Amino acid sequence: MIHASFGVNEVGNLTLNGADTVELAKQYGTPLYVFSEDDIRENCRHFVEALGAFYDGNGQILYASKAFCCKEMYRIMKEESMGIDVVSGGELYTALSVDFPVERIFFHGNNKTDAELKLAIQAGVGHIVVDNLEEMHRLNDFASAANRVMHIFLRVKPGIDAHTHSFIRTGQIDSKFGFALETGEAMAAAKEALSLSHLSLDGLHCHIGSQIFDTEPFALAADVMLRLMDKLRAETGVTLEGLNLGGGFGIRYQESDRPGVYRDSIEIMAAALRAAAKELDFPLPKLYLEPGRSIVGAASATLYKVGSVKEIPGIRTYVAVDGGMTDNPRYALYQAPYEIVIANKAREERDFVATVAGKCCESGDLIQENAAMQHAEPGDTLAVLATGPYNDSMASNYNRIPRPAAVMIRSGNARLIRRRESYEDLVKNDL
Amino acid sequence: MIHASFGVNEVGNLTLNGADTVELAKQYGTPLYVFSEDDIRENCRHFVEALGAFYDGNGQILYASKAFCCKEMYRIMKEESMGIDVVSGGELYTALSVDFPVERIFFHGNNKTDAELKLAIQAGVGHIVVDNLEEMHRLNDFASAANRVMHIFLRVKPGIDAHTHSFIRTGQIDSKFGFALETGEAMAAAKEALSLSHLSLDGLHCHIGSQIFDTEPFALAADVMLRLMDKLRAETGVTLEGLNLGGGFGIRYQESDRPGVYRDSIEIMAAALRAAAKELDFPLPKLYLEPGRSIVGAASATLYKVGSVKEIPGIRTYVAVDGGMTDNPRYALYQAPYEIVIANKAREERDFVATVAGKCCESGDLIQENAAMQHAEPGDTLAVLATGPYNDSMASNYNRIPRPAAVMIRSGNARLIRRRESYEDLVKNDL
Repeated sequence: MIHASFGVNEVGNLTLNGADTVELAKQYGTPLYVFSEDDIRENCRHFVEALGAFYDGNGQILYASKAFCCKEMYRIMKEESMGIDVVSGGELYTALSVDFPVERIFFHGNNKTDAELKLAIQAGVGHIVVDNLEEMHRLNDFASAANRVMHIFLRVKPGIDAHTHSFIRTGQIDSKFGFALETGEAMAAAKEALSLSHLSLDGLHCHIGSQIFDTEPFALAADVMLRLMDKLRAETGVTLEGLNLGGGFGIRYQESDRPGVYRDSIEIMAAALRAAAKELDFPLPKLYLEPGRSIVGAASATLYKVGSVKEIPGIRTYVAVDGGMTDNPRYALYQAPYEIVIANKAREERDFVATVAGKCCESGDLIQENAAMQHAEPGDTLAVLATGPYNDSMASNYNRIPRPAAVMIRSGNARLIRRRESYEDLVKNDL
Repeated sequence: MIHASFGVNEVGNLTLNGADTVELAKQYGTPLYVFSEDDIRENCRHFVEALGAFYDGNGQILYASKAFCCKEMYRIMKEESMGIDVVSGGELYTALSVDFPVERIFFHGNNKTDAELKLAIQAGVGHIVVDNLEEMHRLNDFASAANRVMHIFLRVKPGIDAHTHSFIRTGQIDSKFGFALETGEAMAAAKEALSLSHLSLDGLHCHIGSQIFDTEPFALAADVMLRLMDKLRAETGVTLEGLNLGGGFGIRYQESDRPGVYRDSIEIMAAALRAAAKELDFPLPKLYLEPGRSIVGAASATLYKVGSVKEIPGIRTYVAVDGGMTDNPRYALYQAPYEIVIANKAREERDFVATVAGKCCESGDLIQENAAMQHAEPGDTLAVLATGPYNDSMASNYNRIPRPAAVMIRSGNARLIRRRESYEDLVKNDL
């Protein structure tokens, strides 16, 4: 299977991190998100270890909250000495509610509201990643009113296409995020930040894409960004101490994907920084990375109960489950690929090809089309693997379908970390 | 503008149903969903009137809840003597919470859970639209256990493509919904239903698509379905009394769309039914229709506050708003077109072309690309028109962004019908 933490037990049921998924579905109901806590912790340690091995631990690994955000996830990050990146007041509020160390928080976003900036100042978050000049001035004003100096990074569009390995002059600058490097916008913004009384410019940030399996784009980004920092030093005399190279580390969604190469990526990134720093005689910056998907990881699944199975002769077979685009919108949005396993028949051959349909009143409500799985029948437990990242976080209540419960599995033992939504929850704000 | 209920007042602000949208944004905050109650009520009456004019009122107009579901919407439907269709326990629960008359409820869905079927039986909903044989037997068992006879319709795939006007043998039967007509599946299902002790087969249902502007596909569906009812009478001696032809009536999202032709659609549908009924000597069935989008209608909008405006020379301009794919996922899902108005400059020319971006940490978080609007600046109130249908209902908490409040406007007076989500709401189910 796509991840070593999936297995099959003696009764032929799919296991995750030693826990029987069929039993989990019975105990907690379906749909159910299940996560391997051991793997999440191991993923954190893997990144931290690589930063230590290749960069003397000079920096911080930040978990990109948007991949999966809840109180328990932040408690785990806290215990693993991770930082976090948040992109909204809601994520920040969640982090504060478990006393997450504020100095290890980076606050992102292309359009932070006044209320969000004020909340970030009041909470004293470690760094705010400033996206645009209008925001920079608002932040300076609010910080001034609060008699605080806020530490900031600037979000830069480095003009790198992670899929062509090229440093390009268009393309990536067509983004709603940040300041363009090649137009001089980033340099001008840095100078502007240096001129403002209640902001302390600590570093630069960039993010070159998502679900990247190559290592070289990261090295290219490291090199390009350090040269920008060097140029800023030359023009202003200011040496920035931090460089945040974002995330985008790919995970294995399908058996045809190779596993992620996080350690290699960090090694090559660190080497590129060392080489450029030596060439430019620039002090090595603190390195920040923001893995999200690769922390939550592929050792996760959504468990459903199969309802009807409809064979349409000569066309295809639909297997209907008790969730759908409400809990996993990624197929509807991106035709995202997922592996499917009938959890109570995990030892059998996956020689049955079917389309997994949800229960929403929408013909596009599909989780996967023409996917291989074991022979599916009503009452089966159907597992969609690697749904941990960006499923719960993007879930909706379309058709007023309650959002699933979530369970974390540690050393084979499961515990509820999110209650299933109730019907009462759905009408709570209706007047 | 796309709908006559939008206007511009003496200070140059966009109005909806007489209410100043800039003032609404100030009063209730942004993002904000605004709906014209007068238009919603008029839309209901328009359908009811047409059913009266062309079909002697022999039937019922059912509001398709999935377009926008909340308590207040159901109160309005109740007052307008509408029925409703629901597709989940959550929608049914919402309807029951305002004492919606259960006999006017149709319960739909391709994969109703045991709990949903039992809730429907317990509540005594008027009709359950059975999707598949497995469900039919479960429902009969549960009804038997509850000592009730449930009235059902069968969902039929009539094999009609609303966009080619043809009765086709494939294509439409590739759907997760219902029983295929042309394979004999629907006929077999009807006979099976007639054999079950605790089900009363009252009619057939079909739904031929969404956002349809032509009238002929509805007439074709009416004809095809009545012929199926006639064939069932010939084979079993049973004359079904109800025919539900679903929804799919298009609304005007853009100025280039023509307005909907609901009255004409009902006229031509009624004529087709009368013609076939006369030819076959079949009693005219009760006609049920399920408009959703066309009830909520185009007299609705989402109001945002503009944050940054980024001009990328030679590429495009991004206007960032304080919402995004969280409150309107339809551009990300379908590249759905919307008209944009800067509400506080509504009298000015729409000669500014920009891409409206949300605040999510996702480059695909766009509401509209390269759309015409008035010149946008930070602090402006930006209105996206006709967002009433399928925006609130599909909204998510991605990035833990709270979902908007909703306001209903009656005769120029606004009232809150849904409170804005709070940060507390977001963490409520986190353990």
